[in-house]
Parts: sequence; C-alpha cells; structure tokens
Amino acid sequence: MYDFAAEPGNNELTVSEGEIITITNPDVGGGWLEGKNSQGERGLVPTDYVEIITEGAKDGISCGNSLADQAFFDSLSSSTAQTSSAAKSSNQASIANDPWSSWNVGKSGNWDNGNAVDSWAVKPESAPGQRNSASNNWEAAAAFGHPQAYQGPAAADDDDWDDDWDDPKSASPSYLGYKETEASEAGGVQRGNSRAAAMKLPLNKFPGFAKPGMEQYLLAKQLAKPKEKIPIIIGDYGPMWVYPTSTFDCVVADPKKGSKMYGLKSYIEYQLTCTNTNRSVNHRYKHFDWLYERLLVKFGLAIPIPSLPDKQVTGRFEEEFIKMRMERLQAWMTRMCRHPVVSESEVFQQFLNFRDEKEWKTGKRKAEKDETVGVMIFSTMEPEAPDLDMVEIEQKCDAVGRFTKAMDDGVKELLTVGQEHWKRCTGPLPKEYQKIGKALQSLALVFSTSGYQGESDLNGAITEAGKTYEEIASLVADQPKKDLHFLMETNHEYKGFLGCFPDIIAAHKGAIERVKESDKLVATSKITPQDKQNMVKRVSTMAYALQAEMNHFHSNRIYDYNSVIRLYLEQQAQFYETVRTGLQHCCLGMYCAAAL
Amino acid sequence: MYDFAAEPGNNELTVSEGEIITITNPDVGGGWLEGKNSQGERGLVPTDYVEIITEGAKDGISCGNSLADQAFFDSLSSSTAQTSSAAKSSNQASIANDPWSSWNVGKSGNWDNGNAVDSWAVKPESAPGQRNSASNNWEAAAAFGHPQAYQGPAAADDDDWDDDWDDPKSASPSYLGYKETEASEAGGVQRGNSRAAAMKLPLNKFPGFAKPGMEQYLLAKQLAKPKEKIPIIIGDYGPMWVYPTSTFDCVVADPKKGSKMYGLKSYIEYQLTCTNTNRSVNHRYKHFDWLYERLLVKFGLAIPIPSLPDKQVTGRFEEEFIKMRMERLQAWMTRMCRHPVVSESEVFQQFLNFRDEKEWKTGKRKAEKDETVGVMIFSTMEPEAPDLDMVEIEQKCDAVGRFTKAMDDGVKELLTVGQEHWKRCTGPLPKEYQKIGKALQSLALVFSTSGYQGESDLNGAITEAGKTYEEIASLVADQPKKDLHFLMETNHEYKGFLGCFPDIIAAHKGAIERVKESDKLVATSKITPQDKQNMVKRVSTMAYALQAEMNHFHSNRIYDYNSVIRLYLEQQAQFYETVRTGLQHCCLGMYCAAAL
Repeated sequence: MYDFAAEPGNNELTVSEGEIITITNPDVGGGWLEGKNSQGERGLVPTDYVEIITEGAKDGISCGNSLADQAFFDSLSSSTAQTSSAAKSSNQASIANDPWSSWNVGKSGNWDNGNAVDSWAVKPESAPGQRNSASNNWEAAAAFGHPQAYQGPAAADDDDWDDDWDDPKSASPSYLGYKETEASEAGGVQRGNSRAAAMKLPLNKFPGFAKPGMEQYLLAKQLAKPKEKIPIIIGDYGPMWVYPTSTFDCVVADPKKGSKMYGLKSYIEYQLTCTNTNRSVNHRYKHFDWLYERLLVKFGLAIPIPSLPDKQVTGRFEEEFIKMRMERLQAWMTRMCRHPVVSESEVFQQFLNFRDEKEWKTGKRKAEKDETVGVMIFSTMEPEAPDLDMVEIEQKCDAVGRFTKAMDDGVKELLTVGQEHWKRCTGPLPKEYQKIGKALQSLALVFSTSGYQGESDLNGAITEAGKTYEEIASLVADQPKKDLHFLMETNHEYKGFLGCFPDIIAAHKGAIERVKESDKLVATSKITPQDKQNMVKRVSTMAYALQAEMNHFHSNRIYDYNSVIRLYLEQQAQFYETVRTGLQHCCLGMYCAAAL
Repeated sequence: MYDFAAEPGNNELTVSEGEIITITNPDVGGGWLEGKNSQGERGLVPTDYVEIITEGAKDGISCGNSLADQAFFDSLSSSTAQTSSAAKSSNQASIANDPWSSWNVGKSGNWDNGNAVDSWAVKPESAPGQRNSASNNWEAAAAFGHPQAYQGPAAADDDDWDDDWDDPKSASPSYLGYKETEASEAGGVQRGNSRAAAMKLPLNKFPGFAKPGMEQYLLAKQLAKPKEKIPIIIGDYGPMWVYPTSTFDCVVADPKKGSKMYGLKSYIEYQLTCTNTNRSVNHRYKHFDWLYERLLVKFGLAIPIPSLPDKQVTGRFEEEFIKMRMERLQAWMTRMCRHPVVSESEVFQQFLNFRDEKEWKTGKRKAEKDETVGVMIFSTMEPEAPDLDMVEIEQKCDAVGRFTKAMDDGVKELLTVGQEHWKRCTGPLPKEYQKIGKALQSLALVFSTSGYQGESDLNGAITEAGKTYEEIASLVADQPKKDLHFLMETNHEYKGFLGCFPDIIAAHKGAIERVKESDKLVATSKITPQDKQNMVKRVSTMAYALQAEMNHFHSNRIYDYNSVIRLYLEQQAQFYETVRTGLQHCCLGMYCAAAL
C-alpha cells in the first residue's frame, strides 16, 4: 500500500506501492507480517504498510444486520468512498474530514441542512485556517474506522465467514465494493468502516427506522420513558456511572472446531464462562462481531467500543492464530465486562446468559430491533445533579477532545517506537549477539590448535563466554514476548478506544452547536423557549455522560498503564539481571582459568 | 572504493565505487568514519570501504630511507602495481599472489631463476588446484601491506610529513605513483606497501647492497661471524628466545607541538620515557616510522612487526587524533619493548637512549647501513639444540602457517562482528531507547493533563521510567568505549601481527624448498654435499627461530586475549548491572505510586 524499504540484514522485504505480496505469516509479532513477493523473496513487512486483499474475490461479508441496517450500509458505502478520496486528494480537502476538527472549531454550522450527515459531524465551511497541522494524521480513516492493525476489508478466508448466517433474514451485501475505489488507498479505511458507518447512521437520513437523529433527541417535547435507565451520580471524582455491586469477568477458552452443512463448512467456537454464574455458552467469532455491532450502534456515541481483533488473513498457522485471537477476544470481553453500563446492558447479558438456541435467536432479534441507539442512548441517562451551563459543557467537551487527541498521539508514538524496537530485538540484535558468540567460540577453537601447552582452561572459558553470548541472543529475542508484547497490546487496545473519540466528540460538539444557534431560532419563533430549555438540559445530560465515561476511562487507564509499565520494567530488570549473572559467571571462569 | 549501501536510519551514507566523499570525521570509532558526499549528505562509512586520497595531489611522502633503499622502492613500485592488478583480474590469477599459497604447496619451484622475486616467495606454477578458497581474502594486499584500517597511501595532510627529513641524503620520491594504477583499487594495497616491499628486497635483485639473498644465507661456505648474537634456548614450551633479566616499558606521553624553519612547519613531538632508565627522549611520528622501517627490514622475516598507527587524514579534530595516535603508539612501543629480541636490538635501544642530536644521527646512519637484515638475521641466531630433520621442520612451518591463517580468519571475523555491533550500539539502539524514554515521558505528560485526581505520583513514576530509558540510551552509546574498544584494539593489533606471517612463512617455505631440491644439485655437482649439510643446518636454525617466535607469540596471545575478553565481560556485566539497578529503581517508584 505504501513503499517500504527493507533495512538490509534485518530480514525485511522491500515492497512498492501497488505490489502484491503473498502473506506467509500474518502475525510474527510487533506489527510485522511475513510475506513473499512475486520473485519468491521472503521477509518482514510492517502490517501498516499493506492492505490485505483476499484471493478469489470473495467480497461478501455477511454482516448479520437487519435489512434496515443494510440499507444504511448501502447508502453509506458510497459516501465513505467519496470522503476518503477527498481526504486523499489534498491536505486542504482533508480538513473537512478531520474528525478532530469539529471540536477545534468555534464557529457554528448551518442549522437548516441538519438532515445531512455532514452538517453535524463535520463542518467544512467553518474549519479553514484554524486547523492544527498535527491532526493531519486523523484523516477520514479515524472517523470511519478503528485504526487497528491487521484489518482486512474482506478477509473472506476466515472460516467463520465462509458460511451464511443462521438468521434467514440476513443478506450478503457487496457494499464493500468501495475496496476497489480510491478509498482503499487512503490508509486506514478498512473493515472498520461498516461499523463506524453503522454507528453514524442513527443520526440522520432514515428517520423512519430508529428515529435517533440529533433533532429528535434535543427537540422532542417529551422523551419517551425508556425501559432502561442509566443513572449518573456525582462521586469523589465528579460524575460517574453507577458500578454494579458485584462485578464479573468472562473467561474465553476452549476453542473447538465445529462444522455445519454436513461438514462442508467449519468454524471455531469458543466457550465463554461468566465468573459470577459459572455457566458457559458457546460463541463463534461472528457472534462476537454481531455483539460488537450492536454495542457500537447502541452505545457508540457515549462509550468508546473498541473493535474486535481482526479477521483471519489466511488459513495457515491456524493454531497460533486461534490462540492469538482468543487472547484478544478475552481482552475485549474483559473490557466490556469491566464497563458498568455495557456489562449491565440487556444485549450483553443476553449474549452471555442465553439458555438455548431459541433464547439466543429471540434475544438477537430483539436487540436488532432496539430503538434506543445512537444519540437516543442519552435519553436513558439520568444525572443526579443540576444541569450544567453551556460554557462549562463546552469546556468539558473541549478538554476531553484535547486529552484524547493528545493521548492518541502519545499511544501511537509508543506503538511506533515499540514496533521498531520489537523488530530490532527479535531480528538484528540477537543475530549480532549470536555472531559475537560464534566469533568467540571459533577463536577459542583456533587457539586450541596452537599446540601451546596449558591454555585449554582459558580456551574453555572463552568458549563458555561465546556460548553465553549465544544464550544472550536467545534471551534478547524472546524478551519482547515477555514484556514489550503486553505494553503493545495495552496500547493497541487504547488506540482502539481513542479511535472512537472523534465520533463521540463530534456528536457532543454537534449538540452544543445546535444549542448555540437555538437563540436565533427562538428569536425567529422556529422553536419555543421551552424547546431551548429542553435542549440545554439534554446537552447537559450528554456532558454528564461524557464526564462519567471519561472518569471510567481514566481510572481504567491509570490502572492499565501502571500495571503494564510496571510489568515491562520488572521483566526488563529481570532480563538485565539474567544477562548479568551469565556474564559474571563467564568472568569467574576466565579468572579461574587465568589463575591456573 | 567499494559500493556501500547505507542501512536506513542508522546514520550511514551510501557510497558507490569511485565516488569521492569528503571526510568530516576520520575516526568516529568502531571502524567508521564520517563523510560527506557531493550532494552534501553526511553519514557513516566503514573505513575499509574507502581509500584516503588527499587534496592538492601532494603525492610525495619522504620516506627517510637511504638512496639505496630508494632504488628498491622505485623498482618495486611497478611490480607491486602489476601484481595487484593481476590479483584483481581473476581469482585464478590471484592464486599466484596468495601469500598463504606457498606453504600450502608441496611441489618445488624452479631453482634456476632464484634471482627473481617470484621464485622464492611465490610459486604460481605449483599452486593450481590446491588452493583453499578461504585464502581468497589473502590477496596481494596482505602480502604487501599490513591490512589495518585508516591507511592512506599518501596522507600528506599529516603535519609530520609536511617537512623534509633532517638527513640531507634523503629524497622525496614520487614512487607512490602506483596509486594511480589499478593497484589502488585492489583493496588493501596502501601505504603499507612500501614497507613490505622494503622487507622483501633483501631477498633479491640488489646483491650489491645488503647481500641478504636466500642463496647467500643458505649456501655461504662460512657465515661471517656477526657482532650480534641471538641465542635460542629450549625451555619448558620448546625453543624460546632468551628473555632479558630485567624488562622495561616505554611511556609515550606529553605530545607537544614543535616547529622548525622559523615556524613555517610544525609537528607533534612525543616524550618517550623508559621505565628502567627513567630517562626521556623526544620523537616525532616520522621517527617512529623510521624505526618501524628499520625493524621490518632487519627482523621482518623472523619476527612479525605490526605497522604503526596510520597517518592523519585531516588536520581537524587534532586533539582527539593526537590522543588516539598516542594511545596506539604507546601500544606499539609496549609490544616492541615486550619482545626480547627487538627490545634488545641496537637500533631499538639507540632509538630510546640517545643522549643528543648528534648521537641520534650517528645511530640512525649506522642502522641504515646495517647489513644483517632480511634473511641474514638468521645468521645471528644460535639455537642451543641439535639440528632438526627436514620432515619436522616442514611440519612445524606448516603448522604455524595453518594456525596463523586460521587465527587471522578468526580475528577478522571478530573485528567484522565488533564493527557492526559498535555501530548498532552507538547508533540505532540508543536512539531507540531514547525514543522509548521520550514516548513514556510524553505519555506521562498527556496523562498529567487529564484533570483526574490522584495520578500525579504515578505520572511521576512513568516520567522517571522515561528518563531512565534516556539514561539507558547514554549508557548503551558510551559502553563500547569501555569494553568493545579494547577488544577491537587488541584484535586490530593481532590483525597487524598476523598480516606479517604470509611473508615469514613464505621465507621459511622458500628455504625448505631449496633444501628439497638440493639433492638434485648435489647429484649434478652444482653444489657439494657439505653445502647441502650447511643448508639443512641453516634451515634448522630458521625453524628454531620460528618456533621461538611462535612461543613468544602464543604466550603474549594468551595473556592479551584473556585480559581483554575478561575486561570485556566484566564491563558488560557492570553495564547490565547498572541498567538493572536503574530499572529496579523505576519499578519501586511505580509500586510506591500505585500504593498511594
């Protein structure tokens, strides 16, 4: 997808933009995959530099959404392609698509075309000149997808996706045809698209279906009393979700191969066991994917829902792939279980606690018909606190925008550095230690042929030193799995979280802008002063929700980063200690030999 | 001189064969120099890949030899160029110039053209098919020069060489014109040429001067009783030189800028103080160079005389350069002082102990007129042991050849690996640690803007961890100077020693071949049986000398390698301990912060 120049001697493969390479190992770790070019040369390529395309053009992914959802996808696929291609054509053009630009911008948009996608999330006409050049990285890709590695727009090789959905209502749309447009070259515009697209939909365009447009929420005379209620209380750290008295986790384990259609189609089923009930259910990857879609549609404007680990690139290396996927599904499930709102939601509970196939299907259909999605989720929220004033609301929103943007930069920096370091630690560096070890040993071997008496102990000591350096080579090469791996995984998860914020912030900023413009509308009698008061109250609720979510985010962040950095430091210290011990042992050997 | 492809991100400079780069720093360590190409790009290039050419075509180096020596140089310069160009034209052709080929070869050469250089040292007609491909590395370069780094064929920028010799007899020849021929492209054929050439000369061609041809030594009815005597005794380890009862070292210190010609020419003078007499003399670099030439001419066929540190490449960085040169002159002098034969020789003693300018000049002229040079040095040697038989002599000689060749390979392997490792440890690796450090610190900085309470201690701990990684970066970058430097210097010295052996072995093999052919000559009455007996005795003396020297070499080698490898391991262990301590301190910080 991009030119990549291999570093000589580092087992890398030089690739050019547009070149097609065959993936021989989709995940060698640290953000690298192993590929083979048309000349048959093998080597490592950064996953970020390639776009996965599948053989045989099986371009249909069954998405498990209702037909209504499908219509949104269809309508969105063209606009996504358009947006991405605009983002690519020039920097100036990409301003319009910068997901961060909306919170950066003070000037309001045009109230009257409120029915278009663009008017809420993105305000191209108000952006020029004010845009921070650092936000260049945040092109359309970030707005429309979760920028994680290994995303393939149509990874049809995946067993799980070879067969159709059980649900007879589901279709196999080929809306991912945008893969063939310029959009597919624009960087991160990948599989995540469909999800972010789904998340955006409730805002607009199809009021006939879920009616969760921003106007409906902000301007409804009376919000329908939802069955669900999400209280927001004021704790020591400000607004917070109410945490359930008993928490639970979900253990993802025991991947088993299943098959259907008389063995023609096979898939992997994972066993999920809740720690509170100790009951198990089985789910395939596509079920997780369905859950992700539902959570994104329902909570995505209030709570960052990081995407799932990505689809399989190739059928080879199955065991390793399944293990890695399971590890990441586990991490994802643990995140969801940890979230007080998500974990208590009906769709999530039903995913874990259905008793039989029938209950699962019933629950599934019910979840798909849920109308409390998109911006309407805020209608279920009940802050136990006085309304905030607009200045404060806007400040809070801006602060979150700044923080998540800055953290996103920081996380990406660490991931980039970590990826580079991973490669060095597993490639050239151990090779060098091995060479040092071998050079010392061959020197000792030469010395042993000198015929000179009394140097055998010393040559033995040099040989030992050589072997120690070979051991150091192994230690160095294995170390990243013990420390850097976890640091990378955690940052990768947070990159996923942070990739959700541009949309969240955009929704909040959109609501704020509406309120700002409402005085004009009151003046021209387009809305009543009561309408305006309702708007402020509802935007205030959104602000409380944002703060509650941020406080949840921060407490998790603090816990996660401190755990993982401490683990990293401990493992690093342990590594240096192990090497030191080995070297000191060698020194002792040299001393003893010299003393003889 | 060769193509060199820079490793991206490693601060290297890609150079093509024939490209001219300007040296901006001649010695950044580890066998790298910093250069600038015609596009103004700067970067590191391995010193082995470039040939130093000086600006302004000051091609004359005053060599300080007598006019007679000069004649040899003149005659040799063409044959050197010829040989090297042959070596370059094909592998097959280079067989003839493989310095190791002579001891590999069983078949004898042609007695009758014994006056030609080729007939003794090199036997092209007897080599084909027997040549070890590994000895490819040992092309003409090794035979004609000491393959050490930083050799410039005409480093006329060197202050020391800007002015003429005091000696009115000396000339400023431009015999180094071979620099313009193919020879200069052949690899290591550099400044060392003149020396190895000088060493070879006594064997042949100019019997009118020093008469030290092999025939003269082997066939002389009666060897002139030399004033000097070099006894060889049989010790616990076999034949050995007699070690003087009191040894001494020579401290090279206090480099001072001197000038002459009313300040028009300036030079650096070093103070040399013998540890036994505690008296000091001053010498300039060119005096060391003169001594080296004399020792090479006198002892070079019996004792490996490693070349001096090389001439200055540029006038910049003077202080650092002088320090490095002094360190290497010190190492060279210590080697010479440690050698029982060299250190006791008149020329060496006179170099250290002259009382005034007049005594120095007298001694200098005397040394230059010394006729006991080349192969004639063996006439001064008196082994206190029965003559060896020819089978044993040949076996010993072959064993030395095999060992020194194998050790040369081993040393070069270690130097190559060490050079690569040096670069990684001073370039990309610390940069990466620095990046990790900075990434952690910027993440902590972002975290501190969260507005969430109670995380300042934790962010402080993460910042500390980041700073620790920046410190690790410095430790990593500085470490090679503390350990790898000494390992490299020692190996570099030994590479110099080992580069002398092809000539030494060739002289011995040549003598052995003569004896082997002598039966035929006795049968045809070309020589008498007594002549043949003398020959065997004299070759036996040479074999004793070789063994004595090898025993000296081995005991030094064992001492040197064990010292330097132990130092390396100790320093490495210390490094790992320092890093571990720093990391553990960070862990503790994280723990404390988390506990608050």
